Amino acid sequence: MATATRRSFVMDHITRLIQSRTLGAGDRLPSVRGLAARLGVSPSTVVEAYDVLAADGAIFALRGSGFFVADRVQPFAVSQTGPELEREVDPLWVARQSIDSGAEVAKPGCGWMPADWMPVESLRRAMRRVTRGDSSVLTDYGNAQGHADLRRHIARKLHDQGVGVDPDHVLLTNSGSQALDLICRLLLKPGDTVLVDDPCYFNFQALLRAHRITVASVRHTRNGPDLPTFENVLKEQRPRLYLTNSALHNPTGATITAATAHRVLSLAESYDMLIVEDAIFSEFEPDLSPRLAALDGLDRVLTIGSFSKTLSASLRCGYIVARPDWIAALTDLQVATNFGGPSPMVTTLLYAALTDGSYRKHMEALKTRLDGARNRTIGELSTMGIVPWVKPRGGFYLWCEFPGQQDVARLARAALRQGVVFAPGNVFSPTQSMNSFMRFNVSQMNGTSHLEVLRKLLSRSDIS
Amino acid sequence: MATATRRSFVMDHITRLIQSRTLGAGDRLPSVRGLAARLGVSPSTVVEAYDVLAADGAIFALRGSGFFVADRVQPFAVSQTGPELEREVDPLWVARQSIDSGAEVAKPGCGWMPADWMPVESLRRAMRRVTRGDSSVLTDYGNAQGHADLRRHIARKLHDQGVGVDPDHVLLTNSGSQALDLICRLLLKPGDTVLVDDPCYFNFQALLRAHRITVASVRHTRNGPDLPTFENVLKEQRPRLYLTNSALHNPTGATITAATAHRVLSLAESYDMLIVEDAIFSEFEPDLSPRLAALDGLDRVLTIGSFSKTLSASLRCGYIVARPDWIAALTDLQVATNFGGPSPMVTTLLYAALTDGSYRKHMEALKTRLDGARNRTIGELSTMGIVPWVKPRGGFYLWCEFPGQQDVARLARAALRQGVVFAPGNVFSPTQSMNSFMRFNVSQMNGTSHLEVLRKLLSRSDIS
Repeated sequence: MATATRRSFVMDHITRLIQSRTLGAGDRLPSVRGLAARLGVSPSTVVEAYDVLAADGAIFALRGSGFFVADRVQPFAVSQTGPELEREVDPLWVARQSIDSGAEVAKPGCGWMPADWMPVESLRRAMRRVTRGDSSVLTDYGNAQGHADLRRHIARKLHDQGVGVDPDHVLLTNSGSQALDLICRLLLKPGDTVLVDDPCYFNFQALLRAHRITVASVRHTRNGPDLPTFENVLKEQRPRLYLTNSALHNPTGATITAATAHRVLSLAESYDMLIVEDAIFSEFEPDLSPRLAALDGLDRVLTIGSFSKTLSASLRCGYIVARPDWIAALTDLQVATNFGGPSPMVTTLLYAALTDGSYRKHMEALKTRLDGARNRTIGELSTMGIVPWVKPRGGFYLWCEFPGQQDVARLARAALRQGVVFAPGNVFSPTQSMNSFMRFNVSQMNGTSHLEVLRKLLSRSDIS
Repeated sequence: MATATRRSFVMDHITRLIQSRTLGAGDRLPSVRGLAARLGVSPSTVVEAYDVLAADGAIFALRGSGFFVADRVQPFAVSQTGPELEREVDPLWVARQSIDSGAEVAKPGCGWMPADWMPVESLRRAMRRVTRGDSSVLTDYGNAQGHADLRRHIARKLHDQGVGVDPDHVLLTNSGSQALDLICRLLLKPGDTVLVDDPCYFNFQALLRAHRITVASVRHTRNGPDLPTFENVLKEQRPRLYLTNSALHNPTGATITAATAHRVLSLAESYDMLIVEDAIFSEFEPDLSPRLAALDGLDRVLTIGSFSKTLSASLRCGYIVARPDWIAALTDLQVATNFGGPSPMVTTLLYAALTDGSYRKHMEALKTRLDGARNRTIGELSTMGIVPWVKPRGGFYLWCEFPGQQDVARLARAALRQGVVFAPGNVFSPTQSMNSFMRFNVSQMNGTSHLEVLRKLLSRSDIS
C-alpha cells in the first residue's frame, strides 16, 4: 500500500470504531504501537492518521496521556469555512495568529499599533490616579449601563459628529465586538440574514456565524457599497440588518460619499432594514465624513465603537449608541450574559486618560505619524508592483492588490513559517474573491525585514 | 366614562393608529394636550394611557421630546417572566437594583461584600507594580486563551481540589457569567433543555433565557438535588446539561454530599447529560466538599469560576476549566464574540495580587469575619422568627424562611421604597414557589437599620 492508502486504512478503522460506538466519547484510543502492530502498519502511519483525525475534531490529544474520542456532541464551531484549501485562512486566521504569536513575530497584518505608538505615559498617569482613588472603584460592580462620565464623553463626541444623543443613548460594553454581539442577540434570531461589505472586517463573519446568521454581501466600492447590487440584495434576500464601517472602511480605508450614504438609508427605509455602523476608526479621520446615524437620527441606525485603536486594546471597553428603549434592553442582556459591562476600574482609568489634557495632542501627533508611515509604505510596496486600491484619508490600513493573479493566502502561510503574520485578502471576503489582495498595517511596517520576506516570496514559485 | 374606560379608549385609539401603520416605528405620538382635546378626555388620562403603552413596549418616551412608536421589531427581552404581579421581581430584579442603586442604598440582598472587606491594599500594591511594568501590558491585546501564569495558578488550585488539569484546560473569560454564556453558545442550541436547581442563582435563568433555552428544575435539598425528581426529569425532559453550584450552593449555602454527587454523575452518564459546576464560592469553604469535576475527570463536567467574590468584582475576570478540545473551540468563540477575553492589564494585576503573599492570610481573615457575621445575623433574624433553612459551612449567604406564608416579594418592594435592597426568594425560583424565603448577605448586615426596616414591615399588614 502507498503511504496515503495506509493512513486512510488506519483512519477508516478508527472511524468505524467510533461510528459503531465501540469507542465512546472520552474513550482513549488504542496506543500507537499496539494499533500499528495489530494493523501491520508503521507507528508513524498511525501517528499521521491520528493527527488527521485530531485536525478534523473526531479525536483529541491530551498531552502525555494519548488520544481520546471527542464528544459526540458536535460543538458549535465558528472557524472552518469554505473550501478545504482555505481552511488555514478562515476569518479567525489573522486574529488568532496575531494575538497568539509572541513579540518575536512581526505582524504587518495585525489590527493594532505598536505599544510605543500608544499614549503609554498618559495611561500610567491615569493608573496612578485610580490607584490612589476610591477603593470601591477597585472592588465593586459598577452600574449596569457603565461609567456615567465616560458615557457623557462619548455622547459629546457623537454630538460633534452630528449625532444628537445624550448619555442615556450610550451603553458601555467589553469591546466593539461584544457591542455587536449584544446587538445580534437583541435584534436578530438564528436564520436571519445580515448584509456585510465584500471585503469587510473579518471578525464580522465569525461573529455572525456564532449567531447562526446567514451572511449576504455587497461589493464595496471606493464610494461605499455598490448601490445597484445593494438594492438587489435588499429586494431578494431581505436582510434584517446591514453591518458596515463608517469613517474609514476596514480593510480598504475607503470613505462613503454623502450621496451613497443617503441612498443606503433610503433603501434601508424602503426595505425596513436596520443598520449598524461601526465607527471604530472615526477619530483617525482628518475631517468628518458622512455618518449614517447623523442622517438617520438613530431611528434605524445603531453606532458602535471602542477605545482599542486610540488608547489601549488591553483596557477592554467598547460602546453602543442607540435608541434609549434598545439601550435599556441591551443593558438587561449584558447583565444576563456578563453580569454587566466593562471593569469600572478600567472605565475610570480610560476616562482619566481621555480627559487629562494630553489626548488631543496625542491624536494629532498620531495622525501625522500615520500619514508618514502610510506614504513610506506605499512607496516601498510600489517597488514590488503592489499598489493600494485606494489611498485612505487616515487610519493605519492599506488594502493592496498584488500584481498578476497571486495566491495571496498561500503567500501568507509561507510568510507565517518565516515569522511574519500578513493579512491575506480572503479572510475579509465573504465570497472568497479577494485572494489577490492583502491588508497592510502601516504602523507595523517599521524595518525592512517583512518587506524582504515578501519580496523573496514573490520571486519564488514554490510558496506552498 | 369611568377613568379606566377613558384610559382604554385612548389606548385603543393609539393601538389602532399603530396597527394600521398610520403611525410607523419611530414616529412621534400626538401631543398629550392635542390628543386630549381631540378625544374629549383630560390630559392626565392621555398621560396614563401613554404610560401603560410605554410599559408594554409599544411606545417609548424620549426625555423632553415626547412619546414615539417603538420599532415593530420585537426586540428579544430577557427580563419579564411569570405572572404580572411578579414582574418587578423577575430574575434581573435583584441584579439591577443592587448594581444601579447608589451607595446611599443598603444592599443586604446583593451578591458581593463591602469594599472594606476586600483586599484593597493588596490590589493597590498590584496596580503600582503594573503601572511601573511593561508598556505592552497596558496597550496590547493579550493572547486568546488568557494570561498564562494566571491559568497555571487556576490549574494548580483545581489540582488541590482533586481535579487534575494543566493550563491548557483553562480559558480566561470576562466573568463567571460570560464563562457560562460561552458554554451555552458552544454546547447548546435554542430549544434545548437545561436543568437547574430550585432555587438557583437568579442570573442562571436570565442567561438561559437569553439563549432561548427551556429551563427545567429540580428541588434542591440540604444534600444536593432531590434525586428521585432528578432522575425523573432526566428521563422525561432529557436535559442536555445540568447547571449547578459546587462547594456552597447559591442561594442556600447547602453542600452536596459525596453520595448525591456520585449518583448525579451516574445519572448524567446514563442519560448522556453534561454538567456545568459553578464553583465560584469554592475558596470560602472551611474544608473540601465533593467536586463533580474531580469525580468525573472533566469528561462531561465543565467547571466555571471567577475572582469577583474573593478579590474584586470591578476587575472582571472569570474562567472555564474543561477538556482541551472544548477549550480550543470556546477560545475561538470568545475571539469571535469579544475579540478575546479579559483585559491583559487586569489579569496581570489579579495575578500579582494573588501571588504577593498576602492572599492566603486575607482569605483566612475573611472566613473568620464571615463566621462572626453569619452567627450574628442568625441571632438577629431569629428574634423576628426568621430562621435559616440550613446553616452554611461558609460564604456570605443565608437562605431564610419567613414565619407564616409571607409574601416576601411584596415585602422586598416595600423595603426598596425605603432604600433597602433585599433578595426575595422567587427571583431564585424557576417554579416561583419560594415566596416565603429570602437570601441575606451577612457581610452587608452591619448596622441595625435594615433589620429595623424589616421588623417594621413584618409588623404591618399594608406592605403593598
